[in-house]
Amino acid sequence: MKAAVWHGVKDVRVEDVELKPTKSNEVVVSVAYAGICGSDLHEYLEGPVFIPVNEADELTGGQAPLTMGHEFSGVIEKIGADVTKFKVGDHVSINPTVTKGNWADDLDVYDGYSFIGLSTDGGFTSKVNVPEENLYLIPEDFSLRLAATIEPTAVAVQAVKEGGLRFGEKVVIFGAGPIGVLVAAAAKAAGATKIVAVDLSEVRLNKALEMGATDVVNPSEVANTIDAINEIIPGGADVSFEVAGVQPTFEQAIDATRPRGTVVIVSIFARPISFNPMQLMNAGVKLTTTIAYSKETFQQTVDLVSSGQINVEPVITDMIDLDNIVADGFEALTQDKSQAKILIDLSK
Amino acid sequence: MKAAVWHGVKDVRVEDVELKPTKSNEVVVSVAYAGICGSDLHEYLEGPVFIPVNEADELTGGQAPLTMGHEFSGVIEKIGADVTKFKVGDHVSINPTVTKGNWADDLDVYDGYSFIGLSTDGGFTSKVNVPEENLYLIPEDFSLRLAATIEPTAVAVQAVKEGGLRFGEKVVIFGAGPIGVLVAAAAKAAGATKIVAVDLSEVRLNKALEMGATDVVNPSEVANTIDAINEIIPGGADVSFEVAGVQPTFEQAIDATRPRGTVVIVSIFARPISFNPMQLMNAGVKLTTTIAYSKETFQQTVDLVSSGQINVEPVITDMIDLDNIVADGFEALTQDKSQAKILIDLSK
Repeated sequence: MKAAVWHGVKDVRVEDVELKPTKSNEVVVSVAYAGICGSDLHEYLEGPVFIPVNEADELTGGQAPLTMGHEFSGVIEKIGADVTKFKVGDHVSINPTVTKGNWADDLDVYDGYSFIGLSTDGGFTSKVNVPEENLYLIPEDFSLRLAATIEPTAVAVQAVKEGGLRFGEKVVIFGAGPIGVLVAAAAKAAGATKIVAVDLSEVRLNKALEMGATDVVNPSEVANTIDAINEIIPGGADVSFEVAGVQPTFEQAIDATRPRGTVVIVSIFARPISFNPMQLMNAGVKLTTTIAYSKETFQQTVDLVSSGQINVEPVITDMIDLDNIVADGFEALTQDKSQAKILIDLSK
Repeated sequence: MKAAVWHGVKDVRVEDVELKPTKSNEVVVSVAYAGICGSDLHEYLEGPVFIPVNEADELTGGQAPLTMGHEFSGVIEKIGADVTKFKVGDHVSINPTVTKGNWADDLDVYDGYSFIGLSTDGGFTSKVNVPEENLYLIPEDFSLRLAATIEPTAVAVQAVKEGGLRFGEKVVIFGAGPIGVLVAAAAKAAGATKIVAVDLSEVRLNKALEMGATDVVNPSEVANTIDAINEIIPGGADVSFEVAGVQPTFEQAIDATRPRGTVVIVSIFARPISFNPMQLMNAGVKLTTTIAYSKETFQQTVDLVSSGQINVEPVITDMIDLDNIVADGFEALTQDKSQAKILIDLSK
């Protein structure tokens, strides 16, 4: 079968691979749809970041070259001898996060983690072995295509939960890339009454509006970004999300938030920033972060997406063939700001 | 009457002043004891920081030259016509914080604040006018000397409250100056089971132990500060307090805290630091700050100190005469690490 295999930076090859033997706790998932994530792009452009190269991954045992893809849905084709909770034919979304399991659900990720599709073979192929504990059942009448977006949506749901967002509150989101617009959708589903998206790209701001943002601010088109936000949310946001990962948006996120409100850092920062703790102290703003999602959050996201409470449809901006993953996937995401989530169609 | 009056940097003069006319909402407090604060020292060494020089303070109407002193206790000698809740002879502690009063108690300080004793005449003198709303009754049988430490203790109580410290949890305090050791005392009163003080000064660490710390770490005497803390608190502190105000302790405070624990920034940072948000994200630590205290916290501190639940006695390291405030007060605090809280005795 064909698979998109990471061999090195800018060296992702669509080549023939064999499915490895299925372990007794695993199932074979026939992949339906698989999304390309920002971290896939990082691995392509400047990896390895997560991908284990010099030695096998501690948690999964995987090592490059390996099949990428950690956002995927599919149908169970075969089950291992010890699998009890799933059966052949079940529709599933895959939670790719692998942790040690020594801590409570909300803490375990801070003790180290790996991902199916980054540290062992993933879903950019026709069939993949997945441990039972990484499977989440989705309703048979729910779209397998939309189900492929559950994983990145879980990141957004976790971010909203980390921010302590309460029903009726107001939020600002800095950065309207794929995760930023999913945060807008999650905040809307959580009952936020104002959702302001901030980005330099008009096409991304339009996508944010489509996903649930109530207002947008383009810093290149206003005299002062914070003033523009304050016109929409006088007194400042209850929760701000930093989904851009650079110093100016970090500072603006603090300035846009009300005293005793919270800034959630969602994005990866490529380098240290200059930070004056007095900015935080004078603003009275709390700073927190989010990584991945708990198992509870993944299940909640399955429920929120499959019920339609979070409408993920607009985040999907293209469907491509596996053969064209480099040109139509990685390169398109690098060059085209109108792309949010590109899915690889493996259902055919 | 004599007063310690700020005229400029390194120019605090003990000189004769007249008590200003007492307004109808004010009382005349006959000052008993007044403590010297770190911010007084900043005004002396490198001011003006808070002290209004070029125009009258917006909230208090005060302007330099003015009588310093914002940590003080005393006895009411006279009351204004509109004063209803206090009477002559009442023992009082003064909450010197002046806010606009437009917001809820916990938010008001973020809308701007001034201090009696920094932006208008304070307690480094025999008699001072204080608005009724800044007075807190203390029991007549409670020491007026100890009551002079209620104000800095309220800063520590607020810090512990901001950290969300819960009964039975474990804390680390970076910096064992006057506020750091009061945080140790407040954490002890709040039921913390491990209280680790970190400082380069042995004499300060001994003071922390006297105030309630259970353990101390001197970074100059261990191979690795975080390892030393982890030996005392395996897995990391529930709450860490940054009371030193420099980059190394900021970073260590994050590293010493457990995932989903909290770092409270208590100290003033003189300059920006280099900060990698990924440190916070990977650690899963939350960052918050504290300024001054709410009115609720000030009252709680009166109760905690006057009941003896917080033992403030050891923080007082010297009692001096007003005449010697520069040599025995400001200069002593600058040069002598064994000094924590120096009180000026105005009771004679």
